[in-house]
Amino acid sequence: MVIDCHGHYTTAPKQLQAFRDGQVAGLSDPEKPPPVLSAISDDELRESVQPQLQFQSDRGTDVTIFSPRASVMGHHIGDARTSLAWTRHCNDLIHRVCELFPNNFVGVCQLPQTPSAPLANCLDELRRCVEQLGFIGCNVNPDPSGGMWTAKPLTDRFWYPFYEVLVELDVPAMVHVSGTCNPNFHTTGSHYINADVTAFMQFITGDLFRDFPTLRMIVPHGGGAAPYHWGRYRGLAQDNKRPPLDEMMRGNVFFDTCVYHQAGIDLLLKVVPVDNILFGSEMVGAVRSIDPTTGFYFDDTKRYIDAAAISDADKQKIFEGNSRKVFPRFRAA
Amino acid sequence: MVIDCHGHYTTAPKQLQAFRDGQVAGLSDPEKPPPVLSAISDDELRESVQPQLQFQSDRGTDVTIFSPRASVMGHHIGDARTSLAWTRHCNDLIHRVCELFPNNFVGVCQLPQTPSAPLANCLDELRRCVEQLGFIGCNVNPDPSGGMWTAKPLTDRFWYPFYEVLVELDVPAMVHVSGTCNPNFHTTGSHYINADVTAFMQFITGDLFRDFPTLRMIVPHGGGAAPYHWGRYRGLAQDNKRPPLDEMMRGNVFFDTCVYHQAGIDLLLKVVPVDNILFGSEMVGAVRSIDPTTGFYFDDTKRYIDAAAISDADKQKIFEGNSRKVFPRFRAA
Repeated sequence: MVIDCHGHYTTAPKQLQAFRDGQVAGLSDPEKPPPVLSAISDDELRESVQPQLQFQSDRGTDVTIFSPRASVMGHHIGDARTSLAWTRHCNDLIHRVCELFPNNFVGVCQLPQTPSAPLANCLDELRRCVEQLGFIGCNVNPDPSGGMWTAKPLTDRFWYPFYEVLVELDVPAMVHVSGTCNPNFHTTGSHYINADVTAFMQFITGDLFRDFPTLRMIVPHGGGAAPYHWGRYRGLAQDNKRPPLDEMMRGNVFFDTCVYHQAGIDLLLKVVPVDNILFGSEMVGAVRSIDPTTGFYFDDTKRYIDAAAISDADKQKIFEGNSRKVFPRFRAA
Repeated sequence: MVIDCHGHYTTAPKQLQAFRDGQVAGLSDPEKPPPVLSAISDDELRESVQPQLQFQSDRGTDVTIFSPRASVMGHHIGDARTSLAWTRHCNDLIHRVCELFPNNFVGVCQLPQTPSAPLANCLDELRRCVEQLGFIGCNVNPDPSGGMWTAKPLTDRFWYPFYEVLVELDVPAMVHVSGTCNPNFHTTGSHYINADVTAFMQFITGDLFRDFPTLRMIVPHGGGAAPYHWGRYRGLAQDNKRPPLDEMMRGNVFFDTCVYHQAGIDLLLKVVPVDNILFGSEMVGAVRSIDPTTGFYFDDTKRYIDAAAISDADKQKIFEGNSRKVFPRFRAA
């Protein structure tokens, strides 16, 4: 079985965006009544995920761990009520897709984060998604300000109530920012990668996994820059008298394989312990075209793993075994 | 000849830091007279760069393109006067070291940037360093706020007067942030790398080199995450109908080799055109210890190039030829 641990619902029916547009319009006009999500039929949902199903079939993957479109989580827009209403709709649609295609999709939720409210208001939605909707994990935004980086580091006690619930529910979190409103950053080109680098360095210097030995965090996009700068990070850990990287990561930090060329994947597989790598494609996501040098989609990451010089046993870990460990609720789902 | 394009004066005599401490203390106490830099003798300067000279000799490098310690440029501290006084002292010391060891060091300046003032006040110092002190380039901080990212993108017209002077003087700029005051970021572990990624993505989406065809920008630390995510960046350029990366970079964007392990350097050399790679070590810098897996210093990057499977002609370009092209004033200096 090939489990893609990183897929977003980037192809949702247009009613969802219309609802969001209504929300955003309402922010500047408090007289407006809150928008209502127009009905979306099951057929519309089925139609909307045809691209994903086609890619699964074409590429030979089986199940996608599926979450709302990350770039439009937009935690910096509006306030806690805005974020909660938007998040619930996004998560509910993921749930409906998973119900319609239980063999193809398993749900991961977005959280109703907001820079203006405590984290506590995310916990109910997390519980609802896991306990009632059968979701197996969540995406957590380390920068709900959308590129201003005003939140506390992920290793700060601010986040601990959230980690307590993750541990209790036995679900992992993927560290995933959303769209940026800071013109310095490009959402998928620099903000995403920077957030991965930032989180990984926080994990190196903090004591998060001493305090939560069973907490599991996924750093997407192949761990940002970490594998490329593996010597730098090994050296910084050593210079700062922190645990070696493989020890720090062991049961706690995982990278996906959202790296869109063979040489990058080869480096990832060479330096990062195989037990810490989960197959992922970010499909349908950041890069949607075909690589003219290969003739295949950039984000067809399964091809790179297939072609890599590692054992079949290691490939099985990356494609399936590791995700089953990191997402223990996968089986039940 | 082996030219190290990226070295910082991290070992300056303690009088320099004492001056800075006085400056910082004065910010909260306007009654205090501005600090004065205590005299530093030539012997003290000679002594202070012995580590660099020893590393040059041990590692087989010849000349270091030498700039003030990047992490303490601290453009977010104080105002334009603070930054100018501090910058001039830092640059003057670089100049004195270069005068004392003209075969070992060539100067690159820091700029008196500050978030609170226009860029115009950097131009005089840039001219002074290049025209009077014989410097051959500068470091430009894309985020003088120190981790708040409040400045304009490097492709914004805000920076154009600065680029006009770079072009006129025919000197390149290295994109190099300083220490961060945002607790989310670790200065050398994430803030530096994030800035590289951010700048590179700005170059992909902007029209900077259409407007300044001879402008040369160096993205340090091996180009941040760019080589590891080369497929992502090629794909983003293509999806956004931007020029291919090699075309965009050709005579304008260069990466150094500050990547502290063999597999990372091998990836860099594999995907990035050899004409766009300059040898650099960041020595004595971010990582100061010995890699226990090799027995050599992490930042002894010459070893990785020596061991790489590329031709001698390509190595010569990386070690010397490319830097001579990017820094045409190198010869005169």
